Amino acid sequence: MSLDRLIEKIEQTQNPSVAGLDPKLAYVPEYIKEKCFEKYGETLKGAAKALLEFNKGLIDALYDIVPAVKPQAAYYEMYGPAGVKTLYKTQEYARSKGMYVITDGKRNDIGTTMEAYAAAHLGKVQVGKETYEPFLGDALTVNGYLGSDGIKPLLATCRDNDKGIFVLVKTSNPSSGELQDKKIDGVTIYETMGRMCEEWGRDLPGVYGYSGVGAVVGATYPDQLKYLREKLPATFFLIPGYGAQGAGAKDIAGAFDKNGLGGIVNSSRGIMCAYQKEKCDEHEFAEAARREAIRMRDEIMGCVGKITLNK
Amino acid sequence: MSLDRLIEKIEQTQNPSVAGLDPKLAYVPEYIKEKCFEKYGETLKGAAKALLEFNKGLIDALYDIVPAVKPQAAYYEMYGPAGVKTLYKTQEYARSKGMYVITDGKRNDIGTTMEAYAAAHLGKVQVGKETYEPFLGDALTVNGYLGSDGIKPLLATCRDNDKGIFVLVKTSNPSSGELQDKKIDGVTIYETMGRMCEEWGRDLPGVYGYSGVGAVVGATYPDQLKYLREKLPATFFLIPGYGAQGAGAKDIAGAFDKNGLGGIVNSSRGIMCAYQKEKCDEHEFAEAARREAIRMRDEIMGCVGKITLNK
Repeated sequence: MSLDRLIEKIEQTQNPSVAGLDPKLAYVPEYIKEKCFEKYGETLKGAAKALLEFNKGLIDALYDIVPAVKPQAAYYEMYGPAGVKTLYKTQEYARSKGMYVITDGKRNDIGTTMEAYAAAHLGKVQVGKETYEPFLGDALTVNGYLGSDGIKPLLATCRDNDKGIFVLVKTSNPSSGELQDKKIDGVTIYETMGRMCEEWGRDLPGVYGYSGVGAVVGATYPDQLKYLREKLPATFFLIPGYGAQGAGAKDIAGAFDKNGLGGIVNSSRGIMCAYQKEKCDEHEFAEAARREAIRMRDEIMGCVGKITLNK
Repeated sequence: MSLDRLIEKIEQTQNPSVAGLDPKLAYVPEYIKEKCFEKYGETLKGAAKALLEFNKGLIDALYDIVPAVKPQAAYYEMYGPAGVKTLYKTQEYARSKGMYVITDGKRNDIGTTMEAYAAAHLGKVQVGKETYEPFLGDALTVNGYLGSDGIKPLLATCRDNDKGIFVLVKTSNPSSGELQDKKIDGVTIYETMGRMCEEWGRDLPGVYGYSGVGAVVGATYPDQLKYLREKLPATFFLIPGYGAQGAGAKDIAGAFDKNGLGGIVNSSRGIMCAYQKEKCDEHEFAEAARREAIRMRDEIMGCVGKITLNK
């Protein structure tokens, strides 16, 4: 009923990083696209199949050293219903390899509709006498702009299915301050949202000190990251903004506690496009991704030290 | 490049209401479910097919009197990739009948990812030499918590494809005030977000005085609705909360300008489940939906008066 399974995977791999799977067609090696277009035409289905093959190659190269993947829903929806099927198949493949799956959907709505999103991404649905998992995430990113009504329906689903959520608190983008940095009675909106995460998390306690309600806090705001780690002791952080968005290992150091826990750092383009950056043969995209994942792990672990599970 | 096409449909039908298509399996008549389960089994696909048949029946009953439909993405994602295909097919069918399609996805993210959502729901994507529309919405609901970075990528897509967006401003749920009613320098967050809509909308002017950047404002907060209509003269409102959530026609009166324009009122369960409320034969679900849509139209038009297009 929390993020414990994620934390255990992080400890096992000694790696607090997550591979973002945001597969633009431009990132996919030509030989994969050619093969899929030959079979399915230059269609949305052809594109979706190419993304899936690319993702599978990345997962094969990463699953033993990286604890989690974070597919970003937008890049799958971009290829229509066929693309969304690739999201499902990617989740399924990552799960089969033992990876923790964080679906980055930033979903939000009220009451009954949020229950539908919860069932869709973290729960089960019933059809007649049968029960199905519509999508295969272990955790889901969500947006808390609508207040408790938009979060509470998720908590029951998380409890019943051993899943977690990450609520947007301080996002990594340049304009995140336009709303999030504004102050209400002397307290920023991002801190207000963070305090709500602590509050919501009380319903989903974890055995390692972190609840099932995590927060998204950008690596591009290192001071806020450090500040929030102190203020939100039971809230685990999903940290975007490393690599392509400009933040480095020193920027994320403040996110971790004395046991080396407290956050997981995302890299999407850095890992997916490593073969383009290295200018190596595109057939080596998976090996290049693995090299970048190891480089990133070692860089982060240089700041974090050893990760231990103190109960 | 705005919501003009929606406004024209509202004037043609003299009906500022939108039918929310949030099809829970429990809303679907038994005979439709039985038929689909017989053909496809008690599977996610069977459920998705049942939802599609239900939606088509509703659209057939409504398209000549109701200007728009608003499918809520959550209820389709709830049935997995097959459910998402039903979202697409529902959009396609509504469009073929001339209805304006508002995809209620409340999507949000930063820069490049928001571009992916924009392409997915309001734009086009290229696959090799071919171009496709991944989904078929005319407008999309979005959440502005991430600031301008999360909205600006949408504006270019709206301009290029004659589409619009609705940004969450004051949502209809009981806890919407937890964050949205808090004040920054004496101004509520919902008004701050509303002012951003006016600002963003300058890039997408419309011929009837309303821009392509609308706002979601709940009917359950009539005072705020009236206040925001005065403060946000160029922002068209999508108004949830009528019917099942408790608001009536008098609550939405403040949303409209002297020409009877300014907002479109959503009813989902009220229309979809009219046959259950009427306790009529389930084979008459579509006729019951039409009766309720007419009742709602007449009730709203009793407050609004005649709708005219003054340029």
